[in-house]
Amino acid sequence: MSESTGLLRIDLNAIAENWRRLKNYVGADPAAVVKADAYGLGMLPVASALYQTGCRDFFVATLEEALLLRSHLSAQARCLVLGGAPAGAEQTCVEQHLLPVINSIAALRRWQSSVGAAPCALKFDTGMTRLGLPLEALQDREYRDLLAAANVMVAMSHLACAEARESEHNTRQQAAFTQVRQMFAPLWPRARWSLANSSGIFLGKDYHADLVRPGASLYGFNPCPGRASPVRPVVTLQLPVLQLRALEAPAAVGYGAAGKMPSGALLAVAAGGYADGLQRVLGTEGKGFCEGVEVPVVGRVAMDTTVFDVSAVPAIKERWMQSSDSSLTIDILTSTHNVSEVSARNASLGYEVLTSLGSHRYRRDYLPLEDAVSDSR
Amino acid sequence: MSESTGLLRIDLNAIAENWRRLKNYVGADPAAVVKADAYGLGMLPVASALYQTGCRDFFVATLEEALLLRSHLSAQARCLVLGGAPAGAEQTCVEQHLLPVINSIAALRRWQSSVGAAPCALKFDTGMTRLGLPLEALQDREYRDLLAAANVMVAMSHLACAEARESEHNTRQQAAFTQVRQMFAPLWPRARWSLANSSGIFLGKDYHADLVRPGASLYGFNPCPGRASPVRPVVTLQLPVLQLRALEAPAAVGYGAAGKMPSGALLAVAAGGYADGLQRVLGTEGKGFCEGVEVPVVGRVAMDTTVFDVSAVPAIKERWMQSSDSSLTIDILTSTHNVSEVSARNASLGYEVLTSLGSHRYRRDYLPLEDAVSDSR
Repeated sequence: MSESTGLLRIDLNAIAENWRRLKNYVGADPAAVVKADAYGLGMLPVASALYQTGCRDFFVATLEEALLLRSHLSAQARCLVLGGAPAGAEQTCVEQHLLPVINSIAALRRWQSSVGAAPCALKFDTGMTRLGLPLEALQDREYRDLLAAANVMVAMSHLACAEARESEHNTRQQAAFTQVRQMFAPLWPRARWSLANSSGIFLGKDYHADLVRPGASLYGFNPCPGRASPVRPVVTLQLPVLQLRALEAPAAVGYGAAGKMPSGALLAVAAGGYADGLQRVLGTEGKGFCEGVEVPVVGRVAMDTTVFDVSAVPAIKERWMQSSDSSLTIDILTSTHNVSEVSARNASLGYEVLTSLGSHRYRRDYLPLEDAVSDSR
Repeated sequence: MSESTGLLRIDLNAIAENWRRLKNYVGADPAAVVKADAYGLGMLPVASALYQTGCRDFFVATLEEALLLRSHLSAQARCLVLGGAPAGAEQTCVEQHLLPVINSIAALRRWQSSVGAAPCALKFDTGMTRLGLPLEALQDREYRDLLAAANVMVAMSHLACAEARESEHNTRQQAAFTQVRQMFAPLWPRARWSLANSSGIFLGKDYHADLVRPGASLYGFNPCPGRASPVRPVVTLQLPVLQLRALEAPAAVGYGAAGKMPSGALLAVAAGGYADGLQRVLGTEGKGFCEGVEVPVVGRVAMDTTVFDVSAVPAIKERWMQSSDSSLTIDILTSTHNVSEVSARNASLGYEVLTSLGSHRYRRDYLPLEDAVSDSR
């Protein structure tokens, strides 16, 4: 049977390989950020592959994500919740061996009054101005006593401008992080310190601390914009063609009649549209590949379909037009035209391309780990 | 326990009421387009509510959607598949009482050679230049014989510019549709004819034919841009606040340090980001409401969080800053600041706002039908 929805192929070997490359670069086991369903690629298969590769620290955003992950991963895995423990969920966190990332003095008070010195993680704000204890608070004697009583397993901060290699914001944040570490390290002997996300890793050794936290780079997203990518692509996306259409007269294609095409043009209507996140993945200068030939999007991406101009594909009309075989496809993401490529050419926030792949209409095909060893060396 | 993810509330009564309004306006039972998980709102609860309200014709995009819908709806419901029958799935369609919308001569041949005169639907292309039989093909004698042999239950076309009320494209498509209907109606005595989507309904009686096919308007999206909406809002979205933060010095907020805020500003970090489709829903001039006060987004929307400037909310600092109660929320979509409002103020494709709400991290709360009658009159 031919298919009516796109095929998202996720190479778990590539994800494992990326984790190993980052490990070799840093010289220590990285954590893995698997929040938002592993950026749309599937939290459970991704985390399981990374666990088999040696990863033991997993970051999620919400309690719900953490509970799902915990129920599927070995008790050896540490599971950290970036959004912290919702009020009333402190006991659940302790029972399920989750480490909430405590982000404010109010949250720390709530945690301690509920579960005392249970292990937790703690985030300082060194310049992101989002979640995290503000540095001003550390001057307050009462707050310092609260902090001293905490059983901190991971002490962390987050970079705001890591992708802008030359930004002084990075050096300022790194300096503030070092200062906080000097201040609190003696109080928390078990704590590992963590600052760098994917791009932060490539700002240099000063940013590595004890634990790096890659997310996007594990999934094939280039953490070094403008330079060669240190990671491998992970995802391909292929759409089935629902219909080929030869124009016998000039025509306006799709909604708003926005795509003007000449007589003789050959159009392929592919299954997949903005309800599948395709508008983000295609970007503003949308294109795909048909039998290896670059084919541009014509007109507007619709909810369930996208039209491509396949006139340039050799002999496609003769081979497919009246054929009862309907297995013609359009490649949207390939090993060369990948997530980083699309993001680099577009103003849209790059990571949004990845998370846009989370459509539940795609069929998902996971290439399994070929060599599941607990340590690659 | 307080919550760590947003709450999407979907009012099934409003959806039912919108269907009844369209029915009264048209004077006949509308179909319902429930593809793409009912534009992100949940195909099964939405279709079930509409069935109870009297709707009997349901349009989906893919075979997978159709099989899921069929397994949950009464056999009385007709289920039409806009993407057609994938090659090899013809028998499945017949067994499951699905009506594929046949979009090309090649597909019609495949259908007839596999299941003969089994009931189907058929789409003509009257000017959308996407899916559908081109009108040129109707001149061909061989094709007309094929068409004459088809057992067509629904014969349809689709408008490309229905939202542009004054576009001549509409009148041209309507005229072509009427011509095709005159040509084929005698051959297909059981066929109902269908042209109008949500906006097409409001182009006038000439566009109603036998069966109208609203989608977006059922879900509260104004089908008449620039005029008062004939439908009720359906969806509200509320995000929990993870942390309140008073700035003791000027600060740059979030990724890229893009949001500049003065000393004294009060920031609320809400749970929900672009992985939840929030970037589309907030639009380019993002805002929410906190205790009824309009609050702007500060800096970039991140994957899991969005920061709002809540300085203007009266006495919020005194009431919430050190409170252990963490039930403060930000309203993103309300009955007045709704999906149509957001779309109207933004260049982004309006319907994409709706489908962007499909995040699986939101908790979903369906307001059930209060008065489930099979006919409202």
